[in-house]
Amino acid sequence: MGRYALIMAGGEGTRLWPLSRRKRPKQVLRLAGHRTLFEMAVGRLEPLIPAERILVLTAGDQVEQLRAQAPQLPADNFIAEPSPRGTAAVIGLGAVVLAERDPQAVLACVTADHFIRDEAAFRALLESAYELADSGELVTLGITPTFPATGFGYIHMGEPLGSHGGRQARRVLAFKEKPPADVAQAYVDSGGYSWNSGMFVWRADRILSEIARFVPSLDLGLQEIRASLVAGDLLGGMDRVWPGLERKTIDYAVMERAERVAVLPADDLGWWDVGGWQNLFEVLDVDADGNLILAGEGPRLDTRGSLVFQEEGLRGRRLIATLGVRDLVIVDTEDALLVCPREEAQRVREIVSWLAERGLDRYL
Amino acid sequence: MGRYALIMAGGEGTRLWPLSRRKRPKQVLRLAGHRTLFEMAVGRLEPLIPAERILVLTAGDQVEQLRAQAPQLPADNFIAEPSPRGTAAVIGLGAVVLAERDPQAVLACVTADHFIRDEAAFRALLESAYELADSGELVTLGITPTFPATGFGYIHMGEPLGSHGGRQARRVLAFKEKPPADVAQAYVDSGGYSWNSGMFVWRADRILSEIARFVPSLDLGLQEIRASLVAGDLLGGMDRVWPGLERKTIDYAVMERAERVAVLPADDLGWWDVGGWQNLFEVLDVDADGNLILAGEGPRLDTRGSLVFQEEGLRGRRLIATLGVRDLVIVDTEDALLVCPREEAQRVREIVSWLAERGLDRYL
Repeated sequence: MGRYALIMAGGEGTRLWPLSRRKRPKQVLRLAGHRTLFEMAVGRLEPLIPAERILVLTAGDQVEQLRAQAPQLPADNFIAEPSPRGTAAVIGLGAVVLAERDPQAVLACVTADHFIRDEAAFRALLESAYELADSGELVTLGITPTFPATGFGYIHMGEPLGSHGGRQARRVLAFKEKPPADVAQAYVDSGGYSWNSGMFVWRADRILSEIARFVPSLDLGLQEIRASLVAGDLLGGMDRVWPGLERKTIDYAVMERAERVAVLPADDLGWWDVGGWQNLFEVLDVDADGNLILAGEGPRLDTRGSLVFQEEGLRGRRLIATLGVRDLVIVDTEDALLVCPREEAQRVREIVSWLAERGLDRYL
Repeated sequence: MGRYALIMAGGEGTRLWPLSRRKRPKQVLRLAGHRTLFEMAVGRLEPLIPAERILVLTAGDQVEQLRAQAPQLPADNFIAEPSPRGTAAVIGLGAVVLAERDPQAVLACVTADHFIRDEAAFRALLESAYELADSGELVTLGITPTFPATGFGYIHMGEPLGSHGGRQARRVLAFKEKPPADVAQAYVDSGGYSWNSGMFVWRADRILSEIARFVPSLDLGLQEIRASLVAGDLLGGMDRVWPGLERKTIDYAVMERAERVAVLPADDLGWWDVGGWQNLFEVLDVDADGNLILAGEGPRLDTRGSLVFQEEGLRGRRLIATLGVRDLVIVDTEDALLVCPREEAQRVREIVSWLAERGLDRYL
């Protein structure tokens, strides 16, 4: 069966504000090193999946940026969502497009805004997942928890389903929303939970039939889009149908109720969801003072546990001096500066809301 | 006797870095409102002293800036010190120049980098001081302490010398360096000390004769400068003599040992020495959250006790967002940003040193 990948790259630019913006979302940012998160997402698939078989679903105004970052992918493989309609619609659309190309398509739905340190281990995991999905399982990629995170969803794991590529697949009992700290601790202590990476592997026909079963209104819309695609007018169909689609997340609307849902947990990927500035401390290596300095040279006197991030174009021409600073996040861009304690960084959305309410769209 | 003023405007730009720079010292900054500290220093004298009688002593590279800020003063009244040589040399030079114009000159030596809220009260104090100085007293302007400051020098006051303009003049017993906290507390509790404002009023002939008595080498230099002035070549004389002058402060080298030294304490000026960023909280009114916001509009969410200062040209075109911030100082200029806790702000000189050591002169 043909193996494909669907990169979900439709994120909004709120959680890494002021670096991320509406027109410059997380996945196109160069946070550290020379590749953007999107370039990494494409690059780690390429040894496994030919470029022609990698589909990118994104927001309308991001298509051009993403095409420029992955010119090796056919231009047609970038599909714009006219508006955000939730993961069920995105995944359904991808499955429709790929099933039309190849009725036997098995697709990996992967994210574009996560760090994965060990790309080879990730591909090995995908290989196992494709193999399991060939048999009709709906496979979720799980991550073995290393601490009781409250910022991730969890998967409650049931009976073993046998080994695939050296990994033990297990039945999924339930998807759990981001838990409070005590619940997270209990999950981790039990050993029966993995983090939900938000990545899935399945046969296109299998996921479409589950969508049809549990979200029939979405299925109707997808069928209409498929008809437009067959008639050579995918965009016309999407413009007509998309705004009316029911907004659902794939986990809760479909996966939690579907049959033959499996999880393949990985504990060696170095996977991180870059949720906000505070998460960069988990993803990147801090220096001897516990700082993450992604900025030009400058005095960082008596500064500890802090993130100093400066937009690339400013490095070397604008100095950032810190003195006596503890556990702060400082993000310096051309037209906006953020200063907040590390532990408050997840509240950056409040700033974005404040700006939106006042019509200060040029900063969004 | 003719009344004159000498504005000492030779400060270096370290303590309000990154706003103040070598070429943009404290006194030419617009910290709040539309006037610079230097413009305020000139403006509060003008109702009392004609512009022709106001002399400005400053560093060589600041003459043009200061002339532009006080075009009503004759260009000749701006005199450049070739290099910093301490207050005794500056005051001696001013006295030499004025004594040559008017042997009866009485001059007020005032600072250009202090805030004085009540300008009319300041002029009333000066009137009293001129009157007292006419009689030959060397008059220091004192400030009645409102708290045990450790950032100012103190004057130990002795016997009363009678009332001048409703103020009680007193003999000066000693000048005290900036004291530790417990000593400052004892000074304030005793009621016998005032803060040393660094401003003085005296007859030119009187201060020159005291300089001759206690710093004869400086007197010799000043006599040579005077000869050059008489010969129409003040600048030539200064270039030749100035670098060799002994570096002394007027308080300790002269005043502490001179005869007939008086202090005229004021308790109603709203006087402040803008020593560093932390002092702005004493000078300016904070908002309901205890913040001093001198910046363009922007989200200041859950922000308390903090100073957000933005260079004027950036206001409205660069956003500063703070979130969950407590007691921070944030100073945003075109090419440099400072972030430090309020209580560490006096350490800004360490940043200036760091930059100087690395030859990063463009930020100095």
